[in-house]
Amino acid sequence: MPKRNILATLRFDGRAFRGWQVQPNAPTVMQTFQDALEAALGVRPDVKGCSRTDAGVHARAYGVSFHVESPIPCGRLPAALNAVLPRAMAVTGCREVPEEFHARYSAKGKRYVYRILNTPVRDPFWEGMALHVARPLDAAVLDKAAKDFIGTHDFSAFRNAGGKEGDAVRTVFDSGVCRSGDLVLFSVSGDGFLYNMVRIMTGTLLDIACGRIGPDAIKGILASKNRLKAGATAPACGLLLDEVFYDLD
Amino acid sequence: MPKRNILATLRFDGRAFRGWQVQPNAPTVMQTFQDALEAALGVRPDVKGCSRTDAGVHARAYGVSFHVESPIPCGRLPAALNAVLPRAMAVTGCREVPEEFHARYSAKGKRYVYRILNTPVRDPFWEGMALHVARPLDAAVLDKAAKDFIGTHDFSAFRNAGGKEGDAVRTVFDSGVCRSGDLVLFSVSGDGFLYNMVRIMTGTLLDIACGRIGPDAIKGILASKNRLKAGATAPACGLLLDEVFYDLD
Repeated sequence: MPKRNILATLRFDGRAFRGWQVQPNAPTVMQTFQDALEAALGVRPDVKGCSRTDAGVHARAYGVSFHVESPIPCGRLPAALNAVLPRAMAVTGCREVPEEFHARYSAKGKRYVYRILNTPVRDPFWEGMALHVARPLDAAVLDKAAKDFIGTHDFSAFRNAGGKEGDAVRTVFDSGVCRSGDLVLFSVSGDGFLYNMVRIMTGTLLDIACGRIGPDAIKGILASKNRLKAGATAPACGLLLDEVFYDLD
Repeated sequence: MPKRNILATLRFDGRAFRGWQVQPNAPTVMQTFQDALEAALGVRPDVKGCSRTDAGVHARAYGVSFHVESPIPCGRLPAALNAVLPRAMAVTGCREVPEEFHARYSAKGKRYVYRILNTPVRDPFWEGMALHVARPLDAAVLDKAAKDFIGTHDFSAFRNAGGKEGDAVRTVFDSGVCRSGDLVLFSVSGDGFLYNMVRIMTGTLLDIACGRIGPDAIKGILASKNRLKAGATAPACGLLLDEVFYDLD
């Protein structure tokens, strides 16, 4: 039987996982998904994730690809895997992709959403799913500032130590902040993101919100390439990988 | 110092609690709230909850009253309690109420919302917070059926064994079903609810959805006063106590 290359889309609650990569003594997304493949198909292929994700980060649509010999039709795979996956993870779709496709290297870009719960009192229903900020945020001010991320820049100032990417130049396609009920949402899409980049962008916007950084400072911070000029790394709980862009028909 | 009577409004994620009532070896809402009072105020008063709630049931606004001698102003109480409560519970407000006020007996009614996630695949983000139903539901059909609950009826057919209420006559003020994105919401308000009443109403609506019970059957089931004519008790995870009505200015 020829091996097929499959792209599966995962949704997961990051509270249940210690990020993507397999590590000892902690449930990770990769290991949990491999366990499910093994339980459902009887094989344990190497799987490629679309990105490293930190512990606590959520995904609405995370791409993972793997080569497999199983005869099971793609349309049946999600139900077969969902039956054995833990409740904190689900496969929302599977499709066959070209032999050379790779969930990470074939990605043309990604969109992340950072969720801020902006209410006077913390909310048990959003615990671990959004960052709670009690002071009222002006979404219009933050949206204007967030627009300065758009374009091709060296994002060295928005990369944490631990990032192993050589080149720090990335293109941000779109970036903006809006309010949706009690939530303030920072949405950003681009061709790639450095380690902790979205969380540092968010921390910088929060510094703008409280006046620690001026509303027009982002261009200067980008030009400085100095991590110390940007804001703190916002907590993982607010971060959601919303979509991965692939050139597939 | 004279004792004051305080009404606190709680929000809690029912996944973390085994219902309201104190029981050995399991965290309950009552015990968790009393622990917080003791930690914040140094006293452990008797507390009255607005309703028994089953394990796994959520509350957006649950009323609890207690008499206390503490000099702390009501405006300061939520922050003091939220600082010591676990993350699955928060106090959203506190107010002083008349000496004879009782969170349960002074309630004029309540509104519950039963949340059904109606998507082909289960969703990790709604796990334990809504009932997943994969087959498409017609909210208009269910809404029409749910309207038959409105009015003053003997709800014996919608009460589970274990309900200790003598009289089964209750008045439902409003009852309806609507769709909100991926959710189908059954909202029902009334002057009081029997044990598991909303969950049995929901189970009956789900039986109507799949044709096991006719769309016009609810009036007949009410008249029968026979629990066996109604649907199954829907799972606790979908149930949310949305509001308690009090006559307070």
